[in-house]
Amino acid sequence: MPAPAAGPRTAAPADTVAGLLAEISRVGADPHRGGYSRPVFSSAEFDLRAWFLAHAAKRGLDVETDRNGVIWAWWYTPAGDTANAVVTGSHLDSVPGGGAFDGPLGVASALVALDILRAGGLRPERPLAIAVFPEEEGSRFGVACLGTRVLTGAIDVDLARGLRDQNGDSFAEVAAKSGFDPAFLGPDPEALARIGTFIELHVEQGRVLIDRHQPVGIGSSILGHGRWRLSVTGQGNHAGTTLMTDRHDPMIAAAGIVMAIRDTARAQPGTRATVGRLEPVPGGTNVIASRVDLWLDARHPDDAVTAAVVATILAEARLIAANEGCTVQLTEESVSRTVSFDSALRDHLSLLLPDAPVQDTGAGHDAGILTQFVPTAMLFVRNPTGVSHSPEEYVEDDDAEAGARALALVLADLLVPAST
Amino acid sequence: MPAPAAGPRTAAPADTVAGLLAEISRVGADPHRGGYSRPVFSSAEFDLRAWFLAHAAKRGLDVETDRNGVIWAWWYTPAGDTANAVVTGSHLDSVPGGGAFDGPLGVASALVALDILRAGGLRPERPLAIAVFPEEEGSRFGVACLGTRVLTGAIDVDLARGLRDQNGDSFAEVAAKSGFDPAFLGPDPEALARIGTFIELHVEQGRVLIDRHQPVGIGSSILGHGRWRLSVTGQGNHAGTTLMTDRHDPMIAAAGIVMAIRDTARAQPGTRATVGRLEPVPGGTNVIASRVDLWLDARHPDDAVTAAVVATILAEARLIAANEGCTVQLTEESVSRTVSFDSALRDHLSLLLPDAPVQDTGAGHDAGILTQFVPTAMLFVRNPTGVSHSPEEYVEDDDAEAGARALALVLADLLVPAST
Repeated sequence: MPAPAAGPRTAAPADTVAGLLAEISRVGADPHRGGYSRPVFSSAEFDLRAWFLAHAAKRGLDVETDRNGVIWAWWYTPAGDTANAVVTGSHLDSVPGGGAFDGPLGVASALVALDILRAGGLRPERPLAIAVFPEEEGSRFGVACLGTRVLTGAIDVDLARGLRDQNGDSFAEVAAKSGFDPAFLGPDPEALARIGTFIELHVEQGRVLIDRHQPVGIGSSILGHGRWRLSVTGQGNHAGTTLMTDRHDPMIAAAGIVMAIRDTARAQPGTRATVGRLEPVPGGTNVIASRVDLWLDARHPDDAVTAAVVATILAEARLIAANEGCTVQLTEESVSRTVSFDSALRDHLSLLLPDAPVQDTGAGHDAGILTQFVPTAMLFVRNPTGVSHSPEEYVEDDDAEAGARALALVLADLLVPAST
Repeated sequence: MPAPAAGPRTAAPADTVAGLLAEISRVGADPHRGGYSRPVFSSAEFDLRAWFLAHAAKRGLDVETDRNGVIWAWWYTPAGDTANAVVTGSHLDSVPGGGAFDGPLGVASALVALDILRAGGLRPERPLAIAVFPEEEGSRFGVACLGTRVLTGAIDVDLARGLRDQNGDSFAEVAAKSGFDPAFLGPDPEALARIGTFIELHVEQGRVLIDRHQPVGIGSSILGHGRWRLSVTGQGNHAGTTLMTDRHDPMIAAAGIVMAIRDTARAQPGTRATVGRLEPVPGGTNVIASRVDLWLDARHPDDAVTAAVVATILAEARLIAANEGCTVQLTEESVSRTVSFDSALRDHLSLLLPDAPVQDTGAGHDAGILTQFVPTAMLFVRNPTGVSHSPEEYVEDDDAEAGARALALVLADLLVPAST
């Protein structure tokens, strides 16, 4: 049986991060995989959006869901303008069987940080927005950070519209059913231009903060990463009547490719390469598959090494497939170069949070897309298991509050610049 | 793109096997996998049942669908009794992305054979029934020949009720939704006792009839076969933040096990071992799986060899999994011993069809279950591709008619015994 989701304690006070997360501890719970499955534009993700909208309304924020499905909740300056805004937030969608914190922690922390700022009587000189971005995980349409990629024009909008989920439904079709006119999906320079600074708080997906005994860290860069689909085609046939010597079984080739991926990654220090998704077609127990699709996730700090690793894997895969009388085709689904966050902003955060380690991350984030367009920073909150994209992902209540306080400190500094 | 289903030509005359199959050439067509996906108790399988019921009604047969979901269409003797019946038929369910003939050919051929007998003015001295058995493929609930296993008591009925499909719905739940009271599922000695002789006609799933240049063959035995689920458990984690050296990735172990299965089968001549279904959990691209389930289909004419092969595979799998810091658990889902058809009946069929080769088959069939209880025989019809469980499965129209004529000849002989 899958492990139960290590969600926040429901006894946490309502005005805390843990208290907010407790309100959604049942939304999208996945009885088969454990943890949460909250794909973008699913009923679970819409329930989470409704939860956020209710909290934004309760706080008197001015809310808009834009034509790309991004939610913006505004706390205006007395002048009421939206220029040079400080934006914080994260995402509410999850990987299948993911944890309770990846995404929602940043959204709940933003709400609590706002409460802290208001309780302290802060009078903002810049507008603040809390943003919720759709399809950060790419677990439905295959492209991570799809919301910020579409918003910024980092992905061609026609390509985005044509992305399909596992049911074969396109992003355009699903968006239309979800109330978004596909014709109006696409780059939104006005929305982007409003962002003066973006700060994303996120659960840590590694062990740096455990090792450094700190609840909060500051992001320095995001490892380049990409996703490639390898389709191995062989000869489907009956599992009982086809002799071993007569087979062209793509599952055998796929197994060899999985091993080659691991060996290639091990041979290049710093590389992470993973096959977490693999689908035989047709997938019957008594059927030799006619095709096996598998997805490669590969990352390295040096983008040239990532490209070389993928090239090596493809060459190996071709040999392995040919050896089984199969063929293999590689399709790039998404690639993100290694990106660094704004160094001046990062150094400023280090002055504000002197105990917070400055750390790289191997995980992609919407902040990694936005940093290519606007000054961006990230805060990480300690995860005592070191495990993420799993029900075992966890954040202690005290660390969650420490994260919200750190975010409030950073936002206060940005909203009321020291020079004024 | 998947290959289109090689279905029968729609121009075939209505009173032929090809003409009957043309009527269902769109039912359950699978646009993603190619071919047909007609799982038991799906809307597609119910459409096929309706098609059969209409044809039985048109021929004035007396139809009953019993408490286990088996359809029986009766042509009574003038005396109207059901004892010592000659029963023929097959199944209408398919593997995912299967061909047009595996199952429906036997049902359509039975209808045409009946037409031939009646056109010839045959007056039966024994009753004839055409039977349609549910879940022959086991592609929904994991146990092949589930209908005949339940009917004959070859599977414990509580075990059968608890079998679950990929949605997690049990056989009992799905049966209830399909109009069958799960309390009344179970062995049916009265139904079984009515069968005096069972004859199943089926598309050949190998190449014997191609090599022998014959349209029709006679079955001699069915290879022992079984299905085992191997669950490999590791440590789910984030694909980007977890170093290669820190992983306990069950996908790596599963790939090694797939290779070990192939190598073990190759080392034992006559063995066929296949992994056609493999499911990583949770199955996200950017997620190291926490568990991988894979299904082993293994067959050998000698049941002791099959058991030894599975034992070797399990031992190898444990070593491979331990090497990755993973564990593996093996669950037997179904096992069928090698069975021979009634030798006197087989020899009698060889006298009636002197050109028909007598052949073994590696494929399981309901006839393989029933032969353990009643005299049973099989007829095979040539498949010019030699490929089955695939859209490429095929039968030439002329061969289909030759099969129906051979079946009619056999049925006539059984219905009017030579001694009278």
